[in-house]
Amino acid sequence: MDALHALSNVRIVLSRPSHPGNIGSAARAMKTMGLSRLRLVQPRAFPHEDANALASGAIDVLESAQVFDTLEAALADCVLAVGFSSRGRDLSHPPRALRDAAPLIVASGTAAPVALVFGNETFGLTNEELARCQWLAMIPANPAYASLNLAAAVQVACYELATAASAFAVPEAPEHEPATIEDVEAFYAHLERAMTASGFLDPAMPKRLMERMRRLFARAGLEREEVRFLRGMLAAFEKGKGR
Amino acid sequence: MDALHALSNVRIVLSRPSHPGNIGSAARAMKTMGLSRLRLVQPRAFPHEDANALASGAIDVLESAQVFDTLEAALADCVLAVGFSSRGRDLSHPPRALRDAAPLIVASGTAAPVALVFGNETFGLTNEELARCQWLAMIPANPAYASLNLAAAVQVACYELATAASAFAVPEAPEHEPATIEDVEAFYAHLERAMTASGFLDPAMPKRLMERMRRLFARAGLEREEVRFLRGMLAAFEKGKGR
Repeated sequence: MDALHALSNVRIVLSRPSHPGNIGSAARAMKTMGLSRLRLVQPRAFPHEDANALASGAIDVLESAQVFDTLEAALADCVLAVGFSSRGRDLSHPPRALRDAAPLIVASGTAAPVALVFGNETFGLTNEELARCQWLAMIPANPAYASLNLAAAVQVACYELATAASAFAVPEAPEHEPATIEDVEAFYAHLERAMTASGFLDPAMPKRLMERMRRLFARAGLEREEVRFLRGMLAAFEKGKGR
Repeated sequence: MDALHALSNVRIVLSRPSHPGNIGSAARAMKTMGLSRLRLVQPRAFPHEDANALASGAIDVLESAQVFDTLEAALADCVLAVGFSSRGRDLSHPPRALRDAAPLIVASGTAAPVALVFGNETFGLTNEELARCQWLAMIPANPAYASLNLAAAVQVACYELATAASAFAVPEAPEHEPATIEDVEAFYAHLERAMTASGFLDPAMPKRLMERMRRLFARAGLEREEVRFLRGMLAAFEKGKGR
Protein backbone atom coordinates (compact mmCIF):
# COMPACT_ATOMS: atom_id res chain seq x y z
CA MET A 1 0.00 0.00 0.00
CA ASP A 2 1.39 3.37 -1.08
CA ALA A 3 0.41 5.26 2.07
CA LEU A 4 2.09 2.79 4.39
CA HIS A 5 5.14 2.72 2.15
CA ALA A 6 5.44 6.50 2.39
CA LEU A 7 5.12 6.36 6.18
CA SER A 8 7.79 3.64 6.37
CA ASN A 9 10.13 6.00 4.53
CA VAL A 10 9.78 8.69 7.20
CA ARG A 11 12.51 8.82 9.83
CA ILE A 12 11.83 10.57 13.11
CA VAL A 13 15.08 12.14 14.26
CA LEU A 14 15.44 13.30 17.86
CA SER A 15 18.51 15.47 18.29
CA ARG A 16 20.12 15.41 21.73
CA PRO A 17 17.04 14.33 23.72
CA SER A 18 17.58 14.75 27.48
CA HIS A 19 14.89 12.47 28.88
CA PRO A 20 14.84 8.79 27.92
CA GLY A 21 11.13 8.70 28.83
CA ASN A 22 10.47 11.06 25.95
CA ILE A 23 12.28 8.72 23.57
CA GLY A 24 9.96 5.91 24.65
CA SER A 25 6.86 8.09 24.37
CA ALA A 26 7.95 9.22 20.91
CA ALA A 27 8.37 5.58 19.83
CA ARG A 28 4.84 4.84 21.04
CA ALA A 29 3.46 7.90 19.25
CA MET A 30 5.19 6.83 16.02
CA LYS A 31 3.87 3.28 16.09
CA THR A 32 0.26 4.35 16.67
CA MET A 33 0.52 6.25 13.38
CA GLY A 34 2.31 3.56 11.39
CA LEU A 35 5.87 4.94 11.59
CA SER A 36 8.78 2.81 12.74
CA ARG A 37 12.15 4.39 11.89
CA LEU A 38 13.54 6.23 14.90
CA ARG A 39 16.95 7.91 14.85
CA LEU A 40 18.66 9.44 17.86
CA VAL A 41 21.51 11.93 17.77
CA GLN A 42 23.60 11.99 20.96
CA PRO A 43 20.82 10.91 23.32
CA ARG A 44 21.79 11.69 26.92
CA ALA A 45 20.71 8.20 28.05
CA PHE A 46 19.78 5.37 25.73
CA PRO A 47 18.92 2.54 26.03
CA HIS A 48 17.18 3.23 29.33
CA GLU A 49 14.43 1.60 31.40
CA ASP A 50 12.31 4.78 31.31
CA ALA A 51 12.33 4.66 27.52
CA ASN A 52 11.23 1.02 27.57
CA ALA A 53 8.49 1.69 30.12
CA LEU A 54 6.97 4.57 28.17
CA ALA A 55 7.29 2.88 24.79
CA SER A 56 4.67 0.41 26.05
CA GLY A 57 3.75 -1.74 23.05
CA ALA A 58 6.25 0.01 20.78
CA ILE A 59 9.40 -1.62 22.17
CA ASP A 60 10.18 -2.85 18.64
CA VAL A 61 10.56 0.76 17.47
CA LEU A 62 13.08 1.40 20.28
CA GLU A 63 14.96 -1.81 19.57
CA SER A 64 15.46 -0.89 15.94
CA ALA A 65 16.34 2.75 16.72
CA GLN A 66 19.65 3.95 15.29
CA VAL A 67 22.03 6.16 17.26
CA PHE A 68 24.25 8.76 15.55
CA ASP A 69 27.05 11.05 16.67
CA THR A 70 25.99 13.91 14.42
CA LEU A 71 22.79 15.20 12.88
CA GLU A 72 24.57 15.26 9.54
CA ALA A 73 25.10 11.50 9.71
CA ALA A 74 21.49 10.90 10.79
CA LEU A 75 20.21 12.79 7.75
CA ALA A 76 22.75 11.57 5.20
CA ASP A 77 20.52 9.14 3.27
CA CYS A 78 17.41 11.35 3.33
CA VAL A 79 16.33 13.58 0.44
CA LEU A 80 14.37 15.99 2.64
CA ALA A 81 14.79 16.99 6.28
CA VAL A 82 12.02 18.95 7.97
CA GLY A 83 12.97 20.68 11.18
CA PHE A 84 10.29 21.37 13.80
CA SER A 85 10.35 24.50 15.88
CA SER A 86 7.89 26.31 18.08
CA ARG A 87 9.32 29.68 17.11
CA GLY A 88 10.18 31.39 13.85
CA ARG A 89 13.74 32.41 13.10
CA ASP A 90 15.15 35.54 11.55
CA LEU A 91 17.36 34.00 8.92
CA SER A 92 15.76 30.73 8.10
CA HIS A 93 13.43 28.85 5.85
CA PRO A 94 9.94 30.34 5.80
CA PRO A 95 7.88 28.43 8.38
CA ARG A 96 5.28 26.04 7.00
CA ALA A 97 2.26 25.03 9.03
CA LEU A 98 2.41 21.28 9.67
CA ARG A 99 -0.93 20.70 7.96
CA ASP A 100 0.30 22.34 4.75
CA ALA A 101 3.64 20.54 4.84
CA ALA A 102 2.27 17.05 5.59
CA PRO A 103 1.02 16.11 2.09
CA LEU A 104 4.29 17.34 0.56
CA ILE A 105 6.32 15.32 3.05
CA VAL A 106 4.26 12.22 2.29
CA ALA A 107 4.73 12.80 -1.45
CA SER A 108 8.51 13.00 -1.00
CA GLY A 109 8.36 9.92 1.20
CA THR A 110 6.82 7.79 -1.52
CA ALA A 111 10.07 8.06 -3.50
CA ALA A 112 12.86 8.24 -0.93
CA PRO A 113 13.63 8.55 2.79
CA VAL A 114 12.64 11.80 4.47
CA ALA A 115 13.28 12.98 8.03
CA LEU A 116 11.31 14.93 10.61
CA VAL A 117 13.80 16.50 13.00
CA PHE A 118 13.02 17.48 16.60
CA GLY A 119 15.42 19.28 18.92
CA ASN A 120 16.23 19.05 22.59
CA GLU A 121 13.34 19.37 25.08
CA THR A 122 14.59 22.61 26.57
CA PHE A 123 16.31 24.38 23.70
CA GLY A 124 14.66 23.01 20.59
CA LEU A 125 16.69 22.94 17.40
CA THR A 126 19.69 25.23 17.27
CA ASN A 127 20.11 27.47 14.23
CA GLU A 128 22.96 25.19 13.12
CA GLU A 129 20.71 22.13 13.32
CA LEU A 130 17.93 23.92 11.48
CA ALA A 131 20.37 24.93 8.75
CA ARG A 132 20.87 21.20 8.05
CA CYS A 133 17.14 20.95 7.26
CA GLN A 134 15.50 22.07 4.03
CA TRP A 135 12.19 23.05 5.58
CA LEU A 136 10.99 24.53 8.85
CA ALA A 137 7.64 23.16 10.05
CA MET A 138 5.58 24.55 12.89
CA ILE A 139 2.62 23.24 14.83
CA PRO A 140 0.41 26.31 15.25
CA ALA A 141 0.04 26.79 18.99
CA ASN A 142 -1.02 29.18 21.73
CA PRO A 143 1.43 32.09 21.64
CA ALA A 144 1.02 32.41 25.41
CA TYR A 145 2.31 28.85 25.86
CA ALA A 146 3.49 27.11 22.73
CA SER A 147 5.63 24.50 24.47
CA LEU A 148 4.40 21.09 23.36
CA ASN A 149 6.07 18.18 25.07
CA LEU A 150 8.58 16.52 22.69
CA ALA A 151 6.63 13.27 22.36
CA ALA A 152 3.37 15.22 22.01
CA ALA A 153 4.87 17.12 19.08
CA VAL A 154 5.98 13.82 17.53
CA GLN A 155 2.44 12.47 18.03
CA VAL A 156 0.83 15.43 16.28
CA ALA A 157 3.36 15.34 13.43
CA CYS A 158 2.91 11.60 12.86
CA TYR A 159 -0.87 11.98 13.09
CA GLU A 160 -0.78 14.64 10.37
CA LEU A 161 1.39 12.48 8.12
CA ALA A 162 -0.86 9.44 8.59
CA THR A 163 -3.92 11.59 7.92
CA ALA A 164 -2.35 13.18 4.84
CA ALA A 165 -1.53 9.68 3.59
CA SER A 166 -5.07 8.48 4.43
CA ALA A 167 -3.27 5.57 6.02
CA PHE A 168 -5.94 4.58 8.50
CA ALA A 169 -9.69 4.94 8.77
CA VAL A 170 -12.23 4.78 11.53
CA PRO A 171 -14.16 1.52 11.51
CA GLU A 172 -17.41 1.37 9.59
CA ALA A 173 -20.45 2.18 11.68
CA PRO A 174 -22.13 -1.02 12.86
CA GLU A 175 -24.88 -1.86 10.38
CA HIS A 176 -28.36 -1.04 11.56
CA GLU A 177 -31.26 -1.47 9.19
CA PRO A 178 -32.96 1.87 8.59
CA ALA A 179 -36.74 1.98 8.88
CA THR A 180 -38.76 2.39 5.68
CA ILE A 181 -40.97 5.45 5.34
CA GLU A 182 -43.99 3.17 5.50
CA ASP A 183 -42.82 1.87 8.91
CA VAL A 184 -42.16 5.38 10.15
CA GLU A 185 -45.55 6.68 8.97
CA ALA A 186 -47.25 3.80 10.78
CA PHE A 187 -45.33 4.79 13.91
CA TYR A 188 -46.45 8.44 13.60
CA ALA A 189 -50.06 7.32 13.18
CA HIS A 190 -49.70 5.09 16.25
CA LEU A 191 -48.10 7.93 18.23
CA GLU A 192 -50.85 10.36 17.30
CA ARG A 193 -53.53 7.82 18.24
CA ALA A 194 -51.90 7.07 21.61
CA MET A 195 -51.33 10.72 22.45
CA THR A 196 -54.92 11.53 21.56
CA ALA A 197 -56.28 8.65 23.64
CA SER A 198 -54.15 9.77 26.59
CA GLY A 199 -55.56 13.28 26.37
CA PHE A 200 -52.10 14.82 25.77
CA LEU A 201 -52.99 15.70 22.17
CA ASP A 202 -56.23 17.58 21.72
CA PRO A 203 -57.28 17.14 18.06
CA ALA A 204 -59.12 20.47 18.31
CA MET A 205 -55.89 22.25 19.37
CA PRO A 206 -53.04 20.15 18.01
CA LYS A 207 -50.48 22.98 18.41
CA ARG A 208 -48.24 21.53 15.66
CA LEU A 209 -47.35 18.71 18.07
CA MET A 210 -47.10 16.03 15.37
CA GLU A 211 -45.03 18.37 13.22
CA ARG A 212 -42.56 18.74 16.06
CA MET A 213 -42.48 14.98 16.65
CA ARG A 214 -41.79 14.40 12.95
CA ARG A 215 -38.99 16.95 13.09
CA LEU A 216 -37.36 15.28 16.09
CA PHE A 217 -37.51 11.72 14.73
CA ALA A 218 -36.45 12.82 11.24
CA ARG A 219 -33.33 14.34 12.77
CA ALA A 220 -32.54 11.12 14.63
CA GLY A 221 -33.12 8.90 11.57
CA LEU A 222 -35.11 5.93 12.84
CA GLU A 223 -33.91 2.34 12.56
CA ARG A 224 -36.30 -0.54 11.88
CA GLU A 225 -35.63 -2.05 15.31
CA GLU A 226 -36.24 1.30 17.02
CA VAL A 227 -39.65 1.70 15.34
CA ARG A 228 -40.48 -1.75 16.66
CA PHE A 229 -39.64 -0.95 20.29
CA LEU A 230 -41.18 2.53 20.18
CA ARG A 231 -44.45 0.99 19.02
CA GLY A 232 -44.14 -1.64 21.77
CA MET A 233 -43.75 1.18 24.26
CA LEU A 234 -46.80 2.98 22.88
CA ALA A 235 -48.86 -0.23 23.09
CA ALA A 236 -47.84 -0.65 26.74
CA PHE A 237 -48.82 2.96 27.51
CA GLU A 238 -52.19 2.40 25.79
CA LYS A 239 -52.81 -0.73 27.86
CA GLY A 240 -51.82 1.01 31.07
CA LYS A 241 -54.32 3.73 30.29
CA GLY A 242 -57.12 1.12 29.86
CA ARG A 243 -56.52 -0.37 33.33
CA MET B 1 -12.17 36.45 19.18
CA ASP B 2 -14.72 33.79 18.25
CA ALA B 3 -12.25 30.94 17.86
CA LEU B 4 -10.75 31.43 21.31
CA HIS B 5 -14.24 31.76 22.79
CA ALA B 6 -15.23 28.41 21.29
CA LEU B 7 -12.07 26.78 22.66
CA SER B 8 -12.72 28.25 26.10
CA ASN B 9 -16.12 26.54 26.02
CA VAL B 10 -14.56 23.11 25.53
CA ARG B 11 -14.12 21.00 28.66
CA ILE B 12 -11.65 18.14 28.63
CA VAL B 13 -13.07 15.42 30.87
CA LEU B 14 -10.79 12.62 32.06
CA SER B 15 -12.78 9.79 33.56
CA ARG B 16 -11.03 7.73 36.23
CA PRO B 17 -7.45 8.51 35.20
CA SER B 18 -4.95 6.20 36.95
CA HIS B 19 -1.72 8.14 36.55
CA PRO B 20 -1.45 11.69 37.89
CA GLY B 21 1.41 12.30 35.44
CA ASN B 22 -1.07 11.89 32.59
CA ILE B 23 -3.32 14.52 34.16
CA GLY B 24 -0.41 16.96 34.16
CA SER B 25 0.57 16.10 30.59
CA ALA B 26 -3.04 16.53 29.47
CA ALA B 27 -3.15 19.98 31.10
CA ARG B 28 0.02 20.96 29.23
CA ALA B 29 -1.40 19.62 25.95
CA MET B 30 -4.59 21.63 26.48
CA LYS B 31 -2.85 24.89 27.20
CA THR B 32 -0.62 24.68 24.13
CA MET B 33 -3.81 24.62 22.06
CA GLY B 34 -5.68 27.35 23.94
CA LEU B 35 -7.92 25.15 26.12
CA SER B 36 -8.13 25.59 29.87
CA ARG B 37 -11.15 23.80 31.36
CA LEU B 38 -10.11 20.45 32.79
CA ARG B 39 -12.55 18.15 34.59
CA LEU B 40 -11.61 14.98 36.40
CA VAL B 41 -13.98 12.20 37.37
CA GLN B 42 -12.72 10.06 40.26
CA PRO B 43 -9.01 10.56 39.61
CA ARG B 44 -6.99 7.89 41.45
CA ALA B 45 -4.59 10.56 42.77
CA PHE B 46 -5.07 14.30 42.48
CA PRO B 47 -3.60 16.74 43.28
CA HIS B 48 -0.23 15.01 42.95
CA GLU B 49 3.37 16.12 42.46
CA ASP B 50 3.69 14.06 39.25
CA ALA B 51 0.77 15.99 37.78
CA ASN B 52 2.41 19.28 38.70
CA ALA B 53 5.79 18.22 37.29
CA LEU B 54 4.40 17.16 33.93
CA ALA B 55 2.04 20.12 33.60
CA SER B 56 5.17 22.28 33.29
CA GLY B 57 3.94 25.78 32.37
CA ALA B 58 0.27 24.73 32.56
CA ILE B 59 -0.02 24.59 36.34
CA ASP B 60 -2.88 27.11 36.11
CA VAL B 61 -4.95 24.56 34.18
CA LEU B 62 -4.39 22.01 36.96
CA GLU B 63 -5.17 24.53 39.67
CA SER B 64 -8.52 25.37 38.14
CA ALA B 65 -9.39 21.73 37.38
CA GLN B 66 -12.71 20.53 38.79
CA VAL B 67 -13.13 17.11 40.36
CA PHE B 68 -16.42 15.18 40.13
CA ASP B 69 -17.79 11.99 41.63
CA THR B 70 -19.68 10.97 38.53
CA LEU B 71 -19.36 11.47 34.79
CA GLU B 72 -22.98 12.57 34.78
CA ALA B 73 -22.17 15.50 37.07
CA ALA B 74 -19.09 16.43 35.01
CA LEU B 75 -21.21 16.66 31.86
CA ALA B 76 -24.33 18.24 33.38
CA ASP B 77 -23.90 21.80 32.03
CA CYS B 78 -22.66 20.74 28.57
CA VAL B 79 -24.86 20.56 25.48
CA LEU B 80 -22.67 18.00 23.70
CA ALA B 81 -20.37 15.29 25.03
CA VAL B 82 -17.99 13.58 22.62
CA GLY B 83 -16.52 10.31 23.84
CA PHE B 84 -13.12 9.21 22.50
CA SER B 85 -12.38 5.57 21.90
CA SER B 86 -9.74 3.63 20.02
CA ARG B 87 -12.19 0.90 19.10
CA GLY B 88 -15.67 0.83 17.60
CA ARG B 89 -18.56 -0.62 19.56
CA ASP B 90 -21.42 -2.86 18.52
CA LEU B 91 -24.29 -0.86 19.88
CA SER B 92 -23.14 2.68 19.89
CA HIS B 93 -23.05 5.95 18.05
CA PRO B 94 -21.49 5.65 14.63
CA PRO B 95 -17.81 6.55 15.00
CA ARG B 96 -16.73 9.90 13.58
CA ALA B 97 -13.16 10.58 12.56
CA LEU B 98 -11.76 13.35 14.75
CA ARG B 99 -11.01 15.55 11.73
CA ASP B 100 -14.65 15.40 10.60
CA ALA B 101 -16.01 15.98 14.09
CA ALA B 102 -13.73 18.90 15.02
CA PRO B 103 -15.47 21.70 13.08
CA LEU B 104 -18.86 20.55 14.40
CA ILE B 105 -17.55 20.49 17.97
CA VAL B 106 -16.13 23.99 17.55
CA ALA B 107 -19.44 25.19 16.11
CA SER B 108 -21.33 23.81 19.13
CA GLY B 109 -18.72 25.35 21.40
CA THR B 110 -19.37 28.85 20.12
CA ALA B 111 -22.84 28.74 21.71
CA ALA B 112 -22.51 26.60 24.83
CA PRO B 113 -20.16 24.34 26.80
CA VAL B 114 -19.16 21.07 25.14
CA ALA B 115 -17.09 18.19 26.52
CA LEU B 116 -14.47 15.86 25.12
CA VAL B 117 -14.46 12.72 27.25
CA PHE B 118 -11.49 10.38 27.66
CA GLY B 119 -11.56 7.12 29.59
CA ASN B 120 -9.11 5.32 31.83
CA GLU B 121 -5.60 4.63 30.45
CA THR B 122 -6.03 0.86 30.49
CA PHE B 123 -9.69 0.30 29.78
CA GLY B 124 -10.80 3.40 27.89
CA LEU B 125 -14.41 4.46 28.18
CA THR B 126 -16.85 1.81 29.34
CA ASN B 127 -20.03 1.31 27.34
CA GLU B 128 -21.92 2.98 30.19
CA GLU B 129 -19.68 6.05 30.00
CA LEU B 130 -19.97 6.17 26.23
CA ALA B 131 -23.76 6.00 26.52
CA ARG B 132 -23.60 9.32 28.42
CA CYS B 133 -22.01 10.89 25.35
CA GLN B 134 -23.85 11.94 22.20
CA TRP B 135 -21.01 11.26 19.79
CA LEU B 136 -18.20 8.77 19.49
CA ALA B 137 -14.98 10.23 18.04
CA MET B 138 -11.96 8.24 16.95
CA ILE B 139 -8.41 9.18 16.07
CA PRO B 140 -7.63 7.01 13.04
CA ALA B 141 -4.64 4.90 14.06
CA ASN B 142 -2.54 1.87 13.21
CA PRO B 143 -4.80 -1.17 13.67
CA ALA B 144 -1.73 -3.15 14.74
CA TYR B 145 -1.17 -0.73 17.65
CA ALA B 146 -3.82 1.92 18.12
CA SER B 147 -3.01 2.69 21.75
CA LEU B 148 -2.26 6.40 21.98
CA ASN B 149 -1.11 7.55 25.40
CA LEU B 150 -3.95 9.41 27.17
CA ALA B 151 -2.24 12.82 27.08
CA ALA B 152 -1.14 12.22 23.47
CA ALA B 153 -4.79 11.64 22.51
CA VAL B 154 -5.74 14.85 24.34
CA GLN B 155 -2.96 16.66 22.45
CA VAL B 156 -4.18 15.47 19.06
CA ALA B 157 -7.82 16.25 19.90
CA CYS B 158 -7.01 19.78 21.13
CA TYR B 159 -4.77 20.35 18.10
CA GLU B 160 -7.63 19.41 15.78
CA LEU B 161 -10.04 21.74 17.58
CA ALA B 162 -7.59 24.65 17.50
CA THR B 163 -6.92 23.98 13.81
CA ALA B 164 -10.63 23.72 13.01
CA ALA B 165 -11.12 27.03 14.82
CA SER B 166 -8.13 28.56 13.00
CA ALA B 167 -7.15 29.75 16.45
CA PHE B 168 -3.43 30.08 15.86
CA ALA B 169 -1.17 30.65 12.90
CA VAL B 170 2.47 30.13 12.13
CA PRO B 171 4.45 33.38 12.19
CA GLU B 172 4.88 35.25 8.95
CA ALA B 173 8.02 34.39 7.06
CA PRO B 174 10.74 36.95 7.76
CA GLU B 175 10.64 39.58 5.01
CA HIS B 176 13.31 39.24 2.40
CA GLU B 177 13.26 41.50 -0.63
CA PRO B 178 12.94 39.45 -3.80
CA ALA B 179 15.32 40.22 -6.66
CA THR B 180 13.94 41.93 -9.74
CA ILE B 181 14.16 40.14 -13.07
CA GLU B 182 16.65 42.76 -14.23
CA ASP B 183 18.92 41.90 -11.28
CA VAL B 184 18.58 38.19 -11.95
CA GLU B 185 19.32 38.58 -15.68
CA ALA B 186 22.43 40.58 -14.85
CA PHE B 187 23.48 37.74 -12.53
CA TYR B 188 22.93 35.13 -15.28
CA ALA B 189 25.01 37.23 -17.70
CA HIS B 190 27.75 37.52 -15.08
CA LEU B 191 27.60 33.79 -14.39
CA GLU B 192 27.85 32.92 -18.07
CA ARG B 193 30.80 35.30 -18.51
CA ALA B 194 32.63 33.89 -15.50
CA MET B 195 32.02 30.27 -16.47
CA THR B 196 33.20 30.96 -19.99
CA ALA B 197 36.34 32.76 -18.77
CA SER B 198 37.08 29.85 -16.45
CA GLY B 199 36.82 27.37 -19.30
CA PHE B 200 33.96 25.47 -17.61
CA LEU B 201 31.47 26.68 -20.24
CA ASP B 202 32.53 26.16 -23.84
CA PRO B 203 30.43 28.56 -25.97
CA ALA B 204 30.86 26.12 -28.88
CA MET B 205 29.33 23.27 -26.81
CA PRO B 206 27.13 24.95 -24.18
CA LYS B 207 25.23 21.70 -23.36
CA ARG B 208 22.20 23.65 -22.13
CA LEU B 209 24.25 24.63 -19.07
CA MET B 210 22.71 28.10 -18.72
CA GLU B 211 19.25 26.64 -19.16
CA ARG B 212 19.91 24.30 -16.22
CA MET B 213 21.29 27.15 -14.10
CA ARG B 214 18.18 29.22 -14.83
CA ARG B 215 15.97 26.29 -13.86
CA LEU B 216 17.79 25.80 -10.56
CA PHE B 217 17.76 29.47 -9.51
CA ALA B 218 14.16 29.95 -10.68
CA ARG B 219 13.12 27.11 -8.37
CA ALA B 220 14.94 28.70 -5.43
CA GLY B 221 13.49 32.17 -6.06
CA LEU B 222 16.40 34.58 -5.63
CA GLU B 223 16.42 37.39 -3.10
CA ARG B 224 18.04 40.77 -3.85
CA GLU B 225 20.67 40.20 -1.16
CA GLU B 226 21.46 36.75 -2.54
CA VAL B 227 22.06 38.13 -6.05
CA ARG B 228 24.45 40.59 -4.48
CA PHE B 229 26.56 37.98 -2.71
CA LEU B 230 26.46 35.53 -5.62
CA ARG B 231 27.88 38.24 -7.88
CA GLY B 232 30.48 39.04 -5.23
CA MET B 233 31.46 35.37 -5.25
CA LEU B 234 31.70 35.35 -9.05
CA ALA B 235 33.87 38.48 -8.99
CA ALA B 236 36.22 36.80 -6.49
CA PHE B 237 36.47 33.70 -8.68
CA GLU B 238 37.22 35.89 -11.70
CA LYS B 239 39.98 37.69 -9.82
CA GLY B 240 41.43 34.41 -8.56
CA LYS B 241 41.63 33.14 -12.13
CA GLY B 242 43.58 36.24 -13.21
CA ARG B 243 46.25 35.72 -10.58
